[in-house]
Amino acid sequence: MAAIRIIGIDPGLRCTGWGLIESDGPRLTYVASGSVVSDAGEALSVRLRQIFDSLSEVLNRLSPDEAAVEETFVNRDARATLKLGQARGIAMLVPSLLGLEVAEYAPNAVKKSVVGTGHAGKEQIHAMVGHLLPRSNPDTEHAADALAIAITHAHCRTSVTARVQRGELARAAR
Amino acid sequence: MAAIRIIGIDPGLRCTGWGLIESDGPRLTYVASGSVVSDAGEALSVRLRQIFDSLSEVLNRLSPDEAAVEETFVNRDARATLKLGQARGIAMLVPSLLGLEVAEYAPNAVKKSVVGTGHAGKEQIHAMVGHLLPRSNPDTEHAADALAIAITHAHCRTSVTARVQRGELARAAR
Repeated sequence: MAAIRIIGIDPGLRCTGWGLIESDGPRLTYVASGSVVSDAGEALSVRLRQIFDSLSEVLNRLSPDEAAVEETFVNRDARATLKLGQARGIAMLVPSLLGLEVAEYAPNAVKKSVVGTGHAGKEQIHAMVGHLLPRSNPDTEHAADALAIAITHAHCRTSVTARVQRGELARAAR
Repeated sequence: MAAIRIIGIDPGLRCTGWGLIESDGPRLTYVASGSVVSDAGEALSVRLRQIFDSLSEVLNRLSPDEAAVEETFVNRDARATLKLGQARGIAMLVPSLLGLEVAEYAPNAVKKSVVGTGHAGKEQIHAMVGHLLPRSNPDTEHAADALAIAITHAHCRTSVTARVQRGELARAAR
């Protein structure tokens, strides 16, 4: 079986991180990572278009097979949640327009998959990303988080695919 | 001066309403309205793509000159706010990709502009939309709300354009 290219995306209105890995059975290989930044001086509609255009360019250039996005943390104030939601809508749309399924993982699932415990701190996650993907050198925390999401998907994708086929994830998203 | 075609959009993950009017000085004319529905049985990424595709088709067909979107009501629970934010991201993106400026109006501004008071109920707004646009026949509440947003923009657009030019709206959105 050929290696699968997985892109992880950590959405944010100011900075959206992305990270691409290859998963060949249990073996993970770093491919690329980066950050998409929107101009805080522009109107919201322009900033969302900047995220859309930049992320579309990345996905068109790197041709991932599957995508995974972090489930947004919702225990912040409503205005911050709304901003994040708008950026997250774009982060989900871009791979979907390219025909990719987009898996979603809660922050605790990412921590558990990468570090082994659902209560790991950011530093532990980023250290483990560096250990699992020795050649990676993410330019921002968002890019490091995106690589962690891609790793999580590589670990979980078989079971996720089965759940999507059984329609469980679609039902859970309602 | 030629009439300006204004599209109002009321975003929602399940149902996004839209309404197009022409504004020729103080004279408003109803053109069309409708609702874009996403399939609750599908994954979130698919639903966002459905909204994107349907709304893109509407805007490409009707060629509005300007767009206006309601500022989402944020005093609901975080999960509902997040869902709405994701749909709103798509509703802001579609006109932006077509090069349109997208104005934003708070619910109170819409009420004040359409009914004359910031504390009007839904029924008053919809009755006033029917009065101001006699030929309109919106198929859902979201479409009626979208027409109210378009009317608001017709009333406010001169001052909004001036504010955008002075950079005030971009600063306020940070």
